Amino acid sequence: MTSSVGLERVLEPVGVLPQAAWRLDADPSIREDEVRVRVERLNLDAASYRQLSEKHSGDGDAIRAEVLEIVGTRGKMHNPVTGSGGMLIGVVDEVGPRSPLGVKVGDRVATLVSLTLTPLRITDGLSSWDGRSEQVPASGSAILFGRSIVGVLPDDLAPSLALAVYDVCGAPALTDRIVRQYDQPTVAVLGGAGKSGSLALAAARMAGARTVGIVRDEGEAASLRAAGIADAVAIADARNPVEVAAAVGEPATITVVCVDVPGCEHGAILATAPGGTVVFFSMATSFPAAALGAEGLAADVTMLIGNGYVPGHADFAVDLLRRVPAVRSLFEARLARD
Amino acid sequence: MTSSVGLERVLEPVGVLPQAAWRLDADPSIREDEVRVRVERLNLDAASYRQLSEKHSGDGDAIRAEVLEIVGTRGKMHNPVTGSGGMLIGVVDEVGPRSPLGVKVGDRVATLVSLTLTPLRITDGLSSWDGRSEQVPASGSAILFGRSIVGVLPDDLAPSLALAVYDVCGAPALTDRIVRQYDQPTVAVLGGAGKSGSLALAAARMAGARTVGIVRDEGEAASLRAAGIADAVAIADARNPVEVAAAVGEPATITVVCVDVPGCEHGAILATAPGGTVVFFSMATSFPAAALGAEGLAADVTMLIGNGYVPGHADFAVDLLRRVPAVRSLFEARLARD
Repeated sequence: MTSSVGLERVLEPVGVLPQAAWRLDADPSIREDEVRVRVERLNLDAASYRQLSEKHSGDGDAIRAEVLEIVGTRGKMHNPVTGSGGMLIGVVDEVGPRSPLGVKVGDRVATLVSLTLTPLRITDGLSSWDGRSEQVPASGSAILFGRSIVGVLPDDLAPSLALAVYDVCGAPALTDRIVRQYDQPTVAVLGGAGKSGSLALAAARMAGARTVGIVRDEGEAASLRAAGIADAVAIADARNPVEVAAAVGEPATITVVCVDVPGCEHGAILATAPGGTVVFFSMATSFPAAALGAEGLAADVTMLIGNGYVPGHADFAVDLLRRVPAVRSLFEARLARD
Repeated sequence: MTSSVGLERVLEPVGVLPQAAWRLDADPSIREDEVRVRVERLNLDAASYRQLSEKHSGDGDAIRAEVLEIVGTRGKMHNPVTGSGGMLIGVVDEVGPRSPLGVKVGDRVATLVSLTLTPLRITDGLSSWDGRSEQVPASGSAILFGRSIVGVLPDDLAPSLALAVYDVCGAPALTDRIVRQYDQPTVAVLGGAGKSGSLALAAARMAGARTVGIVRDEGEAASLRAAGIADAVAIADARNPVEVAAAVGEPATITVVCVDVPGCEHGAILATAPGGTVVFFSMATSFPAAALGAEGLAADVTMLIGNGYVPGHADFAVDLLRRVPAVRSLFEARLARD
């Protein structure tokens, strides 16, 4: 196991796992159980891109320069402020003789593990990227360890669409699992018109739940209503607990947080019924705010850290996209805007 | 509901809950549903005290000055670095006519909600505290909202002991609940010789689990072995994932993290079997490190944010202390050392 999780790629501090490392060795030469991918596109995590964009007031050149500096310094695209990364798409370049991943040279794949633990080298200075979008055309090389997750891209989805779906595919799979633990639950999704949010709503409804989508403005409300995946749609500032609780109405059995801004913990807790579950998928979630918030509200709710890995999650999400065309449309509209 | 969670005590930013607020109004005059407590002692959260102590290299005067500054500035003892607080003990001074808490003037109580949301005024400059311990003798006033949790102190426990137990009483109650969801589970507790850790081990064993205590050195191992609440005891650095997994051995069904240092997420995940549960009780837990770490390890584990509130948690913990004298001895030894 030791080598298969990438311990040998950790330069500092030695002994931690690649995700926790400050700096990785991104050397393109592979070990026996590794795979090298020729990078075509990065998909930055929403919280990470938002932080970079706000820091640089949307200045694309400055954002690009900082991404290059992070990757150059750390050997991975690991935003030191948000702690988050994203994913990438590329073509398999070389497969070590002992790789268990089941891919072959020439496969176009998406990595389903975070960029925060993926050794990455950029060779084109990101010259094809204007710095104004989470989707980053890029040339370079990335390394996958033995214990990793990778998805071969489906033929019927554009690569950028597949990447966007894979990036959030843990959300619908985990939502499905939690919904099936309750009898006739109501599921509220904060950020229901977004990528992970719309997939979570669709998954909840497929699993038999009543669904409530909370969105930030009338434009999102209209597109979510048109998608028909929420039984109710309401507008609230997800950072305002009282507003969120009022928008959800009768407390939800399950509340899923898909809003990538800090400060959504308390609204989610207030909006959830005793005995219910809150699933936090936003990387902007604060652990102490959630733990102390629930305590401070005397709220008997189960709070889950949204694990990005559920077995079969990628196929589950792609299947959902195929079965619910309205969700596919939401994704495509969002990609067109980005 | 609006006033009972303390919204009217929030000075900035307006509209958030007291825990999320930067600054609270600690005016000792109470509203109709509030309770005022005459403070006798604060119990700082372990992560908070450790941060303050390390920042000031153990200089008691400097630690005391910073605690006074935090309380003076924020109107609550809310460590801005760790985001955590602690609890307090005192005597009920005045009860608003509409308070639902069921306490009366003169009751000696412990607050079971965090200091991070408790309006607090210190009036003695903490002159009886040397700054060298988490237990802080103090004079002043604190406010409890309508929706709050408070425990009247048991007669058979010293107040400092009761406070230390109440501070971590969510851990045994939640551990008990999770253990009962599995058939014959093994429970590993990182930090098994500490306060929350020893209660979690005792609760797990009472609920029928096999228990493994992970501790940091031979001294802790000896005291945990003597307590007899762990079927196995092993030494590991909780921040070293490979060491933790080796110490736990056969992966645990449930892993409970009670070590108040950053960087314990990956070891806990690696040490847990597929389908298992990791419960994070340390306020030093990083949400992104946990979420991305599980994904990066392709680990199908449920990860819980340790909710400090479970109905009946205070009585459950006190009962455990009475039934397992060895746990009481561990607590008393720890208090004597502090």
